[in-house]
Amino acid sequence: MPNSFGKLFTLSTWGESHGPAVGVVIDGCPPRLPLTEADIQAELDRRRPGQSDITTPRKEEDKVEFLSGLFEGRTTGHPLAMLVRNTDARSEAYAEMKEKFRPSHADFTYQAKYGVRDHRGGGRSSARETIGRVAAGAVAKQILTRAGPVEIRAFVTHIHHIAAPSIEHFPTLAEVEASAVRCPHPETAARMIECIKQVRSEGDSVGGIVECRVRGVPPGLGEPVFDRLEADLGRAMLSLPATKGFEIGSGFTGTLLKGSQHNDPFVSREGRVRTASNNSGGVQGGISNGEEIRFRVAFKPTATILQPQATVDVHGAPAELRARGRHDPCVVPRAVVIVEAMAALVLVDHWMRQSAQNDTFKF
Amino acid sequence: MPNSFGKLFTLSTWGESHGPAVGVVIDGCPPRLPLTEADIQAELDRRRPGQSDITTPRKEEDKVEFLSGLFEGRTTGHPLAMLVRNTDARSEAYAEMKEKFRPSHADFTYQAKYGVRDHRGGGRSSARETIGRVAAGAVAKQILTRAGPVEIRAFVTHIHHIAAPSIEHFPTLAEVEASAVRCPHPETAARMIECIKQVRSEGDSVGGIVECRVRGVPPGLGEPVFDRLEADLGRAMLSLPATKGFEIGSGFTGTLLKGSQHNDPFVSREGRVRTASNNSGGVQGGISNGEEIRFRVAFKPTATILQPQATVDVHGAPAELRARGRHDPCVVPRAVVIVEAMAALVLVDHWMRQSAQNDTFKF
Amino acid sequence: MPNSFGKLFTLSTWGESHGPAVGVVIDGCPPRLPLTEADIQAELDRRRPGQSDITTPRKEEDKVEFLSGLFEGRTTGHPLAMLVRNTDARSEAYAEMKEKFRPSHADFTYQAKYGVRDHRGGGRSSARETIGRVAAGAVAKQILTRAGPVEIRAFVTHIHHIAAPSIEHFPTLAEVEASAVRCPHPETAARMIECIKQVRSEGDSVGGIVECRVRGVPPGLGEPVFDRLEADLGRAMLSLPATKGFEIGSGFTGTLLKGSQHNDPFVSREGRVRTASNNSGGVQGGISNGEEIRFRVAFKPTATILQPQATVDVHGAPAELRARGRHDPCVVPRAVVIVEAMAALVLVDHWMRQSAQNDTFKF
Amino acid sequence: MPNSFGKLFTLSTWGESHGPAVGVVIDGCPPRLPLTEADIQAELDRRRPGQSDITTPRKEEDKVEFLSGLFEGRTTGHPLAMLVRNTDARSEAYAEMKEKFRPSHADFTYQAKYGVRDHRGGGRSSARETIGRVAAGAVAKQILTRAGPVEIRAFVTHIHHIAAPSIEHFPTLAEVEASAVRCPHPETAARMIECIKQVRSEGDSVGGIVECRVRGVPPGLGEPVFDRLEADLGRAMLSLPATKGFEIGSGFTGTLLKGSQHNDPFVSREGRVRTASNNSGGVQGGISNGEEIRFRVAFKPTATILQPQATVDVHGAPAELRARGRHDPCVVPRAVVIVEAMAALVLVDHWMRQSAQNDTFKF
Repeated sequence: MPNSFGKLFTLSTWGESHGPAVGVVIDGCPPRLPLTEADIQAELDRRRPGQSDITTPRKEEDKVEFLSGLFEGRTTGHPLAMLVRNTDARSEAYAEMKEKFRPSHADFTYQAKYGVRDHRGGGRSSARETIGRVAAGAVAKQILTRAGPVEIRAFVTHIHHIAAPSIEHFPTLAEVEASAVRCPHPETAARMIECIKQVRSEGDSVGGIVECRVRGVPPGLGEPVFDRLEADLGRAMLSLPATKGFEIGSGFTGTLLKGSQHNDPFVSREGRVRTASNNSGGVQGGISNGEEIRFRVAFKPTATILQPQATVDVHGAPAELRARGRHDPCVVPRAVVIVEAMAALVLVDHWMRQSAQNDTFKF
Repeated sequence: MPNSFGKLFTLSTWGESHGPAVGVVIDGCPPRLPLTEADIQAELDRRRPGQSDITTPRKEEDKVEFLSGLFEGRTTGHPLAMLVRNTDARSEAYAEMKEKFRPSHADFTYQAKYGVRDHRGGGRSSARETIGRVAAGAVAKQILTRAGPVEIRAFVTHIHHIAAPSIEHFPTLAEVEASAVRCPHPETAARMIECIKQVRSEGDSVGGIVECRVRGVPPGLGEPVFDRLEADLGRAMLSLPATKGFEIGSGFTGTLLKGSQHNDPFVSREGRVRTASNNSGGVQGGISNGEEIRFRVAFKPTATILQPQATVDVHGAPAELRARGRHDPCVVPRAVVIVEAMAALVLVDHWMRQSAQNDTFKF
Repeated sequence: MPNSFGKLFTLSTWGESHGPAVGVVIDGCPPRLPLTEADIQAELDRRRPGQSDITTPRKEEDKVEFLSGLFEGRTTGHPLAMLVRNTDARSEAYAEMKEKFRPSHADFTYQAKYGVRDHRGGGRSSARETIGRVAAGAVAKQILTRAGPVEIRAFVTHIHHIAAPSIEHFPTLAEVEASAVRCPHPETAARMIECIKQVRSEGDSVGGIVECRVRGVPPGLGEPVFDRLEADLGRAMLSLPATKGFEIGSGFTGTLLKGSQHNDPFVSREGRVRTASNNSGGVQGGISNGEEIRFRVAFKPTATILQPQATVDVHGAPAELRARGRHDPCVVPRAVVIVEAMAALVLVDHWMRQSAQNDTFKF
Repeated sequence: MPNSFGKLFTLSTWGESHGPAVGVVIDGCPPRLPLTEADIQAELDRRRPGQSDITTPRKEEDKVEFLSGLFEGRTTGHPLAMLVRNTDARSEAYAEMKEKFRPSHADFTYQAKYGVRDHRGGGRSSARETIGRVAAGAVAKQILTRAGPVEIRAFVTHIHHIAAPSIEHFPTLAEVEASAVRCPHPETAARMIECIKQVRSEGDSVGGIVECRVRGVPPGLGEPVFDRLEADLGRAMLSLPATKGFEIGSGFTGTLLKGSQHNDPFVSREGRVRTASNNSGGVQGGISNGEEIRFRVAFKPTATILQPQATVDVHGAPAELRARGRHDPCVVPRAVVIVEAMAALVLVDHWMRQSAQNDTFKF
């Protein structure tokens, strides 16, 4: 099921950019969870386009509708189906895509794979698919908030050449949401916004890096050997459109350290085993160790740009493409919400798996 | 099934470092593939310890034994079970581990998760688990060689602070195997070997980066939206012990480019659609585009070092650990073989999935 | 994913009897299949209540709406989402169910399992869930019709004590649809209808047996050892509400034969290997052998009856229940359509699996 | 993974009749379970051939060897691999099978599907594959015994035309094991044994019916809608060689009752909700209701008989086959052990699934 994610807490997304709707079904949701449309809408609103002058002007209300799985304000344990109608889809703006492959988009590969493609707005490859992920992630966040509490906070550390200084504390949601670019360092945020406005005026685009932190996760989540927590987090992030890299803890930079520098010494603190440093990023042997989980995701510059580009048409003949349509000059600020959603989904799923094997029967 | 990998071509590994054996079962192998123990042994020998003076002196013959799924030299379509006996396991060297958690190992997290652990040599968390992956990967390589041909070549680009110059050509196997460190740039390889010898003499360890290239892959492999080719490659690599990062194509560096620089223009060449550059790393929209697949994996320095380290014991009391036992001061050169194996496994699995959906029925 | 079925051609159903809608998502559908809402509607109409005087008077239009996965009249290879709104849901008729467990319904077990339940019309346990199955089955039938052609024909052989004489030929769809009870033997059909009317007038209910035949299936579908074709057909049928038994080929009666009578001798006919008899029911060693597949499914009498019944309330106190609401005195005739749908789904899924392993790579 | 069974407690079997060994890997076993080879061996000995004069004279010691997943007498939570060597394999007795398809065996379908087959003793289709199931089932039984306690008891009710009188009590293990035919009704058992001896002397074979009872299962096991407990039990049983039918509770006979007779009234007893009758067979709405689970499995007569049979050879030419080799004139008594094993595996898996969804998070 290539459109499903999770072993026990499973979401399945469906829908295209310019079809009637996009949606998601969650299978395996724990019963009796209090849940309202407002819980979902709050996260969808954070993801929604048209919120600031650095995102796509596409105006979508992105209003969630519950279709099943709720009864008197609580989940029933049965599939939770949610739907968001597409309302501001202007297919005519995409007529050129029918004939020409947009560089670094999925147009060519979809055509090569399936022999057919819905070219309107990228069809299934559109980032509107992530609406279902964010909706499901909102449910996962509700579960985690009540379970721990667990806090998940993603934010932007790099846009193009602009890097935020190292952020040592766990940023508050208010700090992240304070700027349209979702970088919790105000001065850097201002420079990032300037950068995005500049490239937009050039008809160009930029990428960047999202960092995600999770605290409050108990030791024990993650399954050796193939379903290690970092492997599933990595897969989750690399399944997002426009991602090119993932690292956890010390990441690529950690290769510059020696073992004696990189190892995280164990210490006893507050009656439990902790580590004095956190190069491991909260995961050891594929399993959470109770420390803060820290990972970073690289997003390439948006493929859609308004400058003319060389390409070929569907018959293989050379062509020039000048994209129109509405798009983000930089997807990274909105990606923050999606990264949090995927992290929440991975954690809930692994928590249930951990419990199933270790708590169902006690010996 | 946390110890299984792949949807259609599935491997399941089992075994601990100091148990009687390690092994693997492949389910879903295509029938009639010619296969001999020598095909498997060749790859196991590349992975085997004790081959050079920069790896662990543990002497394991790592002789593969076929248990099922073969008949008269061909696969039957039924499970292919393979086993390798552990012969040079010296449990007594690991007595200290029973009482103390080794920093940045899986000792603490295994104990926290399962309430029990086989401390001998790390038990299930030992890299000996990867023998099963390499054996299965050898089968996958046989399939790919006959299918395309597809060539997979991994090699070392970084050890600690030593970086190879950019390698533009597709290195030959001979170039990679020419040095014990598996870097195809001879001068760099020599420096890397010196570096590893130096840290070993200090009782310390180093990490590095493995790059992997795959050529000959047809367009169309990879499944939107969660099972994108890069997501599954990423998961495969991040499921390897000691990995902290994964990037494909332009990776983290790609965040420094603008869209107009990063996009790969389409061109017509040799009668088919190609790209003029390859920042995508051979994958667009989660699907292979027929270009060379290029990704990199970061390996942290080996956690086992021979210097005294601060830690806690299983009761939470402060302790000092001075590891003994045999180990690699740097796992990166041997990881090359395992990276190739995992890449082969991902590709065979996705090839079968692609074919199932798109070739079974024709409309 | 307990609400999903199929490994490669996967359907996931969602929705409750008295929620806003019921629906289904198909993941893995082959691309380029011509498909219209009329293809789906035709099967939904066969399943729909209110078609004759022996079914529930609940009037549901059951109008299918496509939400995704189609482009210009063909499937795209992406999730195919379909939805049917619930329109004639009268929740007030079910108020009694909130307080009392209906005997032989899912009320008690749902409450025991989840600690919460949507009591209105049985919620998720309602047979309205099968709308999604029938819609997905209609897609599978379209695939099979173009693939073979494969024909699937289910029909009623027993209602209560009334048994049709042995039906040796492959009944036409017209013969099955000729009577409201879907028994292709007209005299028996008439008696069955009388029987159902009689029990309805008593406020009672009856069950029966559906037989299903499939012809045109090539040899090779089915996977040893756990995913044998009969195991998956059996699971599919036993996942239908009200089923209590499944048998294939000679079934339970076959236990009365000796091996020398039961074995199906092989013969050469029309240039291929056939069997002279068909006690195997078209499956040997878990794999289709090219003969007609024949199986039977037992449906118990409808649990909802209009006679007063002893039960307990949600507090465990004795209570009397007198069901109201609209219901079928006999579900068996409508089950015919659902049995066909499930058979089609199993076959498409196994066909893709067979092809993936045996046709992707050729040795 | 066609050779794997179970979502969370998963077994994967491998091996052929005349290969070096058969085996099983369990993934997802709860940690800390005390386990010895004797626990496994006891069940394997019950299954083992050569125990009485009504089974195959093939002499296999069937000695289990643990390969992984155990440490100091307890499971570790990692894969539990077990192996049984084939010792009394006489391949030469099967030379005829290489050229001729045995009627009602898997010879033809394996050849048609895979284009290759290990003809020796049926290869993968041999009932020796069930050794892995019985070994894994023995682990599942250990878990269930400590969890409840849950008791599983299968026994023979029919051999050919000989039917035991209705057995109302829950038979003891001693009653079942008292006769070689495993029918707890001594007079019937004696007649069954006579029948089997008679058909064996004729070079013929017979089938029969196994009934299985499970008591001590709590309410709540089973997952709507596709993974209903009866659907998974049915699939498990129909995946066994030689099975042709499955029914639960009232089964096919239940179709003769009216709803007013068939419904199981709820009553309060011993402080919990019970049913006054048990036509449901312990499962309602796909979920266990706490009553005794009762199901029956039909086994056809053994396909291997010593009488000459008409068949075709691998080239499609008519041929006569006169089987030699050792075989059971009736597999039903040995199947009792395998039915119990599969039931135990289904229950442990569903117990873990139930707990994961409903107990991990509490709202």
